[in-house]
Amino acid sequence: MALARAGEVVSNKQVLARDYIDGIPKESDMYLSTASTKLQVPEGSEAVLVKNLYLSCDPYMRGAKKPEPGRITFFAPNSPVVGYGVSKVLASGHPDFREGDLVWGITTWEEYSLITRTESLFKIHHTDVPLSYYTGILGMPGMTAYAGFYGICSPKKGDFVYISSAFGAVGQLVGQFAKLLGCYVVGSAGSKEKVEILKNKLGFDEAFNYKEEEDYDAALKRYFPQGIDIYFDNVGGKMLDAALLNMRLHGRIAVCGMISQYDLEEHQGVRNLMHLIYQRIRMEGFFVYDHYHLYPEFLETVLPYIRQGKIDYVEHITHGIETGPAALVGLFSGLNFGKSVVVLAQE
Amino acid sequence: MALARAGEVVSNKQVLARDYIDGIPKESDMYLSTASTKLQVPEGSEAVLVKNLYLSCDPYMRGAKKPEPGRITFFAPNSPVVGYGVSKVLASGHPDFREGDLVWGITTWEEYSLITRTESLFKIHHTDVPLSYYTGILGMPGMTAYAGFYGICSPKKGDFVYISSAFGAVGQLVGQFAKLLGCYVVGSAGSKEKVEILKNKLGFDEAFNYKEEEDYDAALKRYFPQGIDIYFDNVGGKMLDAALLNMRLHGRIAVCGMISQYDLEEHQGVRNLMHLIYQRIRMEGFFVYDHYHLYPEFLETVLPYIRQGKIDYVEHITHGIETGPAALVGLFSGLNFGKSVVVLAQE
Repeated sequence: MALARAGEVVSNKQVLARDYIDGIPKESDMYLSTASTKLQVPEGSEAVLVKNLYLSCDPYMRGAKKPEPGRITFFAPNSPVVGYGVSKVLASGHPDFREGDLVWGITTWEEYSLITRTESLFKIHHTDVPLSYYTGILGMPGMTAYAGFYGICSPKKGDFVYISSAFGAVGQLVGQFAKLLGCYVVGSAGSKEKVEILKNKLGFDEAFNYKEEEDYDAALKRYFPQGIDIYFDNVGGKMLDAALLNMRLHGRIAVCGMISQYDLEEHQGVRNLMHLIYQRIRMEGFFVYDHYHLYPEFLETVLPYIRQGKIDYVEHITHGIETGPAALVGLFSGLNFGKSVVVLAQE
Repeated sequence: MALARAGEVVSNKQVLARDYIDGIPKESDMYLSTASTKLQVPEGSEAVLVKNLYLSCDPYMRGAKKPEPGRITFFAPNSPVVGYGVSKVLASGHPDFREGDLVWGITTWEEYSLITRTESLFKIHHTDVPLSYYTGILGMPGMTAYAGFYGICSPKKGDFVYISSAFGAVGQLVGQFAKLLGCYVVGSAGSKEKVEILKNKLGFDEAFNYKEEEDYDAALKRYFPQGIDIYFDNVGGKMLDAALLNMRLHGRIAVCGMISQYDLEEHQGVRNLMHLIYQRIRMEGFFVYDHYHLYPEFLETVLPYIRQGKIDYVEHITHGIETGPAALVGLFSGLNFGKSVVVLAQE
């Protein structure tokens, strides 16, 4: 197939939302369609027209009953799903971008997107690593792990570190950062296979399958007889409650996500917050958006680790935009195996 | 009555616990007795023998089913209740203390105490302020307010500050510190009278009676239409849950106490912790014991405020050791009016 060129009119496969979505998306909330798109930027616009190469499935891609000011609307009636991706610029009305540039940032779930919010785009300068990494280890989840671990957790060598949802796009990196610093690291995940890879491939000291544990408190006491210095929380709810019981003096809890709570009508109550006082614990929520000024520093740190093989990264890759809805839904049900990426094209 | 002197044998009224207490004390958990005590320190001991002048009722004076390592046992079978107080040294085996010294720190609920844990005692050098203040504004609650507000809340001029249990020994000070810094300050308390004094005497911008509010979230939205920068939490539970819904971006929550939870079989679940992420909130528990190195700095700050009348302090004073049990119990039921102090003697 000949490569599409600026100015051409092409067929453009899309994943559209049927309506606003209240909470976690189901496959039936999305549908496939094909549009006809002219590969050019409207006269006078500072947008860029891109070809999407990789689309990213991320746990913040949940819907709201209606658009909320200041938050990204991922799902809107008959509009392409919004999400992070890696793309190639085919045409640009913006002085900072030109044809041929590779970028990562917020795009739309279709083969070709007109991106008006160019402020969310980062140019890709290093292509000796897999481009898909810019949806994960070198993109938003990577920055999340970096900012959350180094910026929020105040980690130091020898700390006892617990990571829930440790096999996710963020968790697997936090664990590896912690190991590189000399921490003792335990992760939890939702299958035997994930646990094995955490221990044998990603270098975690221990890992456990939370689905096999009836009593999270007992599980944590087994893996942390001395207690936990840092809890990197991706799940919230009962796991957070159990971790609170096991924190050490002056422990830190980075609240990155609460995936166990997202599809509940009412969130589970967390009852052990008195332990914040008993152990003088700092618990802090954060958003990666506040930390993007650290991106150059982050790249300088992480690129050498990747090139030297000191950090590994497991991706759940599916091929073709048609696989997008199932990949996204699988993220929330725990079916995906590592960072979820949908491949649309290689270049 | 002649003053008791070192070496004499005196009659010594005491408040004893009947047993270990599981949770909040009831009056029937304590009883009065009279011992005969020789006012001297055992040969070779580094203890001090004091006459107690003021005893302090504080919300951390709760019991445990059995002694726990590292925690003070306030109530033990047929032993005097343990608590903070202001005392005068009658005899000393410790080189740092001598007869006539005034001290504050951990003592026992009796007229005369032999204090072996002298490391908990602070010498009182400034006596131009009421001595009872060393159980409150100039003692442990004052240090708690100071360390919690300046150390944990990262306050700045113009911040919107909410304090629950604002009329308590700690809350009334936090509010006044915040006003002196130029914050907008709202407190909640449990009666119309307390609310009036918060507004009219202690300088709070607004105050409300939480017992008259069915919906704490609605109450907070009424007083903080722009949201809350700092929540100084003394109560936990539902109030904390409502505050979480009203925090501003990068808000801070100092977790000082959770008095609403202390007598519950199971603590109430807090459901709105996702707001830690939405608003990037830091929530931190603390203990005053970690901050006593700041005591000299604290005194330098607060003494001038008291002398210049810039800080006021409301005490709930009762007279005679017999009033101790009721005063302590009244603290938990919200019946007391300000910082609870039991006066035993003037000198």
